[in-house]
Amino acid sequence: MTTVPARIDLDTAYPRVQRFYAAQMQLLDGRDIRGYADTFTEDAEFAHTPDRTPARTREGIVEDLTDFHRRFADDPMQRRHFVNMIDLRQADGGGLRATAYCLVVKVRPGEPPVFVSCVMHDLLVEEADGRLLTRSRRVEYD
Amino acid sequence: MTTVPARIDLDTAYPRVQRFYAAQMQLLDGRDIRGYADTFTEDAEFAHTPDRTPARTREGIVEDLTDFHRRFADDPMQRRHFVNMIDLRQADGGGLRATAYCLVVKVRPGEPPVFVSCVMHDLLVEEADGRLLTRSRRVEYD
Amino acid sequence: MTTVPARIDLDTAYPRVQRFYAAQMQLLDGRDIRGYADTFTEDAEFAHTPDRTPARTREGIVEDLTDFHRRFADDPMQRRHFVNMIDLRQADGGGLRATAYCLVVKVRPGEPPVFVSCVMHDLLVEEADGRLLTRSRRVEYD
Repeated sequence: MTTVPARIDLDTAYPRVQRFYAAQMQLLDGRDIRGYADTFTEDAEFAHTPDRTPARTREGIVEDLTDFHRRFADDPMQRRHFVNMIDLRQADGGGLRATAYCLVVKVRPGEPPVFVSCVMHDLLVEEADGRLLTRSRRVEYD
Repeated sequence: MTTVPARIDLDTAYPRVQRFYAAQMQLLDGRDIRGYADTFTEDAEFAHTPDRTPARTREGIVEDLTDFHRRFADDPMQRRHFVNMIDLRQADGGGLRATAYCLVVKVRPGEPPVFVSCVMHDLLVEEADGRLLTRSRRVEYD
Repeated sequence: MTTVPARIDLDTAYPRVQRFYAAQMQLLDGRDIRGYADTFTEDAEFAHTPDRTPARTREGIVEDLTDFHRRFADDPMQRRHFVNMIDLRQADGGGLRATAYCLVVKVRPGEPPVFVSCVMHDLLVEEADGRLLTRSRRVEYD
């Protein structure tokens, strides 16, 4: 590449990234799979579960999550993804590298919540219209 | 209304909203009911528990929470409200709509923490002096 | 003191503080004790455990944490420090006072996570090069 990617001021970008994650995860937790997929780029890659082939493209993410969510179809479980401790850096070639903790809370009626702790490794990019999108996400579980 | 409410830049407002929630919840968790009520507008409405009539006005919030906290009077419990994943939007007619996750942690000596997961639906408004206040809050439990 | 410390705009500083905590805690959770100690000032004081003498200076923090982490040497535990609800204020004499909740999640293979709830009382200062550092930290446990 001969072009120099524009540097993004990380402190200015930080609240945007937080707002982006808030909206993105509320879509996921609300089981709006299409809405969630639309927060990824068209050419995105999303590796959310070890030993499962990463989903690619928005359509691929929709198919993959529709399949993945079948296991929850009869499960009265509410998931909540708490993303926090976002370490934000300039990415080589443009965009933002975010390494963030995610505490997943699973709530079923009358039962104590169940927790899963993971780390998200994201590449975020800015669209021409200023929107943030996830270009790639890899989730590691503790 | 014939006046057009000023639009608030959401990315700029985001850290203010986070600071506001931090201070507000630390007052609540410190059982400073008066201080907590003063983070609401004078005409506020606060629905914190299903099947309980919402509290109205600051004085009403003080009375309601004083009554509600009686159940904790002999309970050596420390509550911590972790507000996170704040989805922030312009509200129709001015102000900010915040839809946020709240993980309530209840700690008693020598016992593992107990968790409650809920979602807060807030309308926040800016006072003439620039302070944020909660005009309405509705809490839904998972 | 006859000099008047520069006031820091708290809303502008807030994302910087959040980024700082994210990077700092990821170092700690990654057991990079030297990297973690370098996020403190050279003359820092760090009181992380009741009834344990506070660590002083970066070198002292390295020694103290190396000693403290020995108990985890054979423990396949991953810790995650979730810092949230950061109440940020101007400190007398310059710098920033941060009072924040910290939920520590301890994950061991095949076991449900264990949680510890604490409150961090920090004094943060800005270096000449613009970096934030912790000058003092006192941790209280619920």
